[in-house]
Amino acid sequence: MKKSDIVIIGGSAAGLTAAITARRHYPEKAIILIRKEKQVVIPCGIPYIFGTVGNPDKNLIPDTPLEKNNVEILLDEAVEISREKKTIQTRSSEMIEYDKLILATGSLPMMPPIPGFDKVNVFPVYKDKEHLIKMQTALKSAGKLAVIGGGFIGVEFADECNKNGCDVTILELLPHCLQLAFDNELCEEAEKAIEERGIHVLTNQKVVSIEGGKKAEGVKLANGSIVEADMVVVGIGTVPNIDIAKKANLRIGPTGSIWVDRTMRTSDEHIFSCGDCAEKFSFFGGKPSKLKLASIATSEARVAGANLFGIQRESVGTIGVFSTALGEKAFAVAGLPESIAHRQGYDVVIGNAEGPNRHPGIMPGMMKQMVKLVFEKRTKVLIGAQMVGDKAVGELINTASACIQHHMTVDDIACFQMGTHPALTASPVVYQYVNAAEAALLSLG
Amino acid sequence: MKKSDIVIIGGSAAGLTAAITARRHYPEKAIILIRKEKQVVIPCGIPYIFGTVGNPDKNLIPDTPLEKNNVEILLDEAVEISREKKTIQTRSSEMIEYDKLILATGSLPMMPPIPGFDKVNVFPVYKDKEHLIKMQTALKSAGKLAVIGGGFIGVEFADECNKNGCDVTILELLPHCLQLAFDNELCEEAEKAIEERGIHVLTNQKVVSIEGGKKAEGVKLANGSIVEADMVVVGIGTVPNIDIAKKANLRIGPTGSIWVDRTMRTSDEHIFSCGDCAEKFSFFGGKPSKLKLASIATSEARVAGANLFGIQRESVGTIGVFSTALGEKAFAVAGLPESIAHRQGYDVVIGNAEGPNRHPGIMPGMMKQMVKLVFEKRTKVLIGAQMVGDKAVGELINTASACIQHHMTVDDIACFQMGTHPALTASPVVYQYVNAAEAALLSLG
Repeated sequence: MKKSDIVIIGGSAAGLTAAITARRHYPEKAIILIRKEKQVVIPCGIPYIFGTVGNPDKNLIPDTPLEKNNVEILLDEAVEISREKKTIQTRSSEMIEYDKLILATGSLPMMPPIPGFDKVNVFPVYKDKEHLIKMQTALKSAGKLAVIGGGFIGVEFADECNKNGCDVTILELLPHCLQLAFDNELCEEAEKAIEERGIHVLTNQKVVSIEGGKKAEGVKLANGSIVEADMVVVGIGTVPNIDIAKKANLRIGPTGSIWVDRTMRTSDEHIFSCGDCAEKFSFFGGKPSKLKLASIATSEARVAGANLFGIQRESVGTIGVFSTALGEKAFAVAGLPESIAHRQGYDVVIGNAEGPNRHPGIMPGMMKQMVKLVFEKRTKVLIGAQMVGDKAVGELINTASACIQHHMTVDDIACFQMGTHPALTASPVVYQYVNAAEAALLSLG
Repeated sequence: MKKSDIVIIGGSAAGLTAAITARRHYPEKAIILIRKEKQVVIPCGIPYIFGTVGNPDKNLIPDTPLEKNNVEILLDEAVEISREKKTIQTRSSEMIEYDKLILATGSLPMMPPIPGFDKVNVFPVYKDKEHLIKMQTALKSAGKLAVIGGGFIGVEFADECNKNGCDVTILELLPHCLQLAFDNELCEEAEKAIEERGIHVLTNQKVVSIEGGKKAEGVKLANGSIVEADMVVVGIGTVPNIDIAKKANLRIGPTGSIWVDRTMRTSDEHIFSCGDCAEKFSFFGGKPSKLKLASIATSEARVAGANLFGIQRESVGTIGVFSTALGEKAFAVAGLPESIAHRQGYDVVIGNAEGPNRHPGIMPGMMKQMVKLVFEKRTKVLIGAQMVGDKAVGELINTASACIQHHMTVDDIACFQMGTHPALTASPVVYQYVNAAEAALLSLG
């Protein structure tokens, strides 16, 4: 029987980061990482395989960080945990004894219970290289592609496959694409960007079945119409992969994920969990959260990995910081959009600002940048930020995330000392992030 | 005699922002802004006039924000303030009565007391359109340009004039260019970038005189050598423009600027000051600070403008957030570099991280990004950040600025919830800003 101080199950963003963090904090401990996949796909990079990157082999997480950190990789599947014996049994019948265990088993694509989803050319998005190669092969002969789901994955898939020459239609149940992340006006801006790139967007559309024989030939909508398609991609969300945790009788949380406390410890004191399989709570009010993001996973992994032999860190809850790129335009959000804040019962004040991202506007790379901030009226604290602009918006949103995490007020942000430069940012006079706070102040009266 | 509730003297970044802020906070008040310049030059954009932008006329701050905010512009020079009568006398003999006054008189280029600096083709950098047109004309016939001073202005000037075909040499007194902002290893990286672009960099060089007849023909160094030049630009810093404040017997601070308290109020309760002319204190320990930046000026202006008829905001002191671009590479700093922190007596711990700014690394726009963080050992609080990478570093540095301003610790940053995206940022696993904090933790033990 193999023995290891620390065992980690799962080798994607959470498992890898947990292993490196554990190594940093516990230099003397033995660490084994068990994973099924010979090569690990970069999860956020998956849509880009089908356009910009061009090949699953170019979208892999290298094993060098694990090797450099003296983490043993065991290519096997963990099938059962004995919590009494503190052992793990693997598919290949190996037994591994652990002192501390981290479950980073991730998530699986959600499949709707709708007829026809088992046809050969209907693809959920597994984070698996072989599956992605099959998708890529299918895509080569697909003239018309239907993407079910207009969230981040759906939109990014559509954009990349469109670059590859496919005729792509997005089918979204809600009134807008990206509606769970952005307010309507930003969704509309994003939809405009998608449509300008030649993608068809059908919103308010419920899919009732996939039509055809063995192969899908179209997607039938609730209004009776059929969207022709010789390939279908399903990107409607994911469900936590908790089989092994359930079998081990670990507590399961309200969203069906592995229950953890703020230290990322499960109901077993020797077992931690992080990433898509772990239960989350919202930074805003502490309610259960279904958000699943690689950046949340790595943040949780840095908590779990540090806490194994003594608590050092606590999760503050999920803020939710997303960004995406459509052509040269980037869209980003941190915290609560106005619509969701309202739905959750917050009394909010909004500040908007827009202007060029360069000064003078004639500088290369000039684009309009738009910032919308959401403040809680009672406390004047920032609870949400949305942005559209050039690629640097992917980092500007992180300034907002820092301010949200540390409860900065509208006055803090209005007087924020940012760095600016003609070739890199908006001018200090029009700096949108600051001016949006000033605009909100007016409404606070 | 004209009367106005609010009078602002100075129309650059500070004066303009103070006027707009005052309007936001005091919608009913009359506001007059007095300035000499018919058209106001964007201060940070000045170096870019001589390359990328191409013309002073394309680097102007528009008057529309003032017009939209119902601020009266008076093109005149304020020459004397009577604090007893609360009046200002202008060059054209107008008298203006104020209730509250904001001095935003800015700064003037520093001229070293060295022989030959009065020659016709030696140019300090006045923020004045006519002066800049003269410089541009001179530059057209200048084959060899010497730039005295290797700070941000000097480096940016050199880079832009080089783009324009000039043979440029930077002469810097200190061992490195940009040494007052960055640690040596980053200075060296910047110097490498400058030299790769064909600019000559001479450091450790004291200028003793400008040689030639009526026209400069060379710059003589302390080592006896002469650097040939048929044009000389001087960018060795600025001095506060405080003549009118001195004449009015306002208190002057330890760095020779107009003394203000944290509300930006001068020694006269009806007079505020902000921007390059106002005395500053460091965010770190509160000592006097000579930093002068447009982004500091606008932050102070937002404090001053809001406080005129009732204190609403306080300055937290200058953090100092700089960025610059050399080709596709951006360099940025917030707070204290390690060298300056040491010199100020801080016991610090350093964290470094580097890696690609995209994931996978094959995504377009991939560059190496490097982050160096400086933490105070005693409190584990972030006090400095330096970065080199793509243009988004111009915004990433602002995340660091937010964290510095709100005293975030090394653990806060190690578990920071940032947003990431393949086309926009580093992967969440290698995210340099977070990993630099993790690296520092190791040294904290």
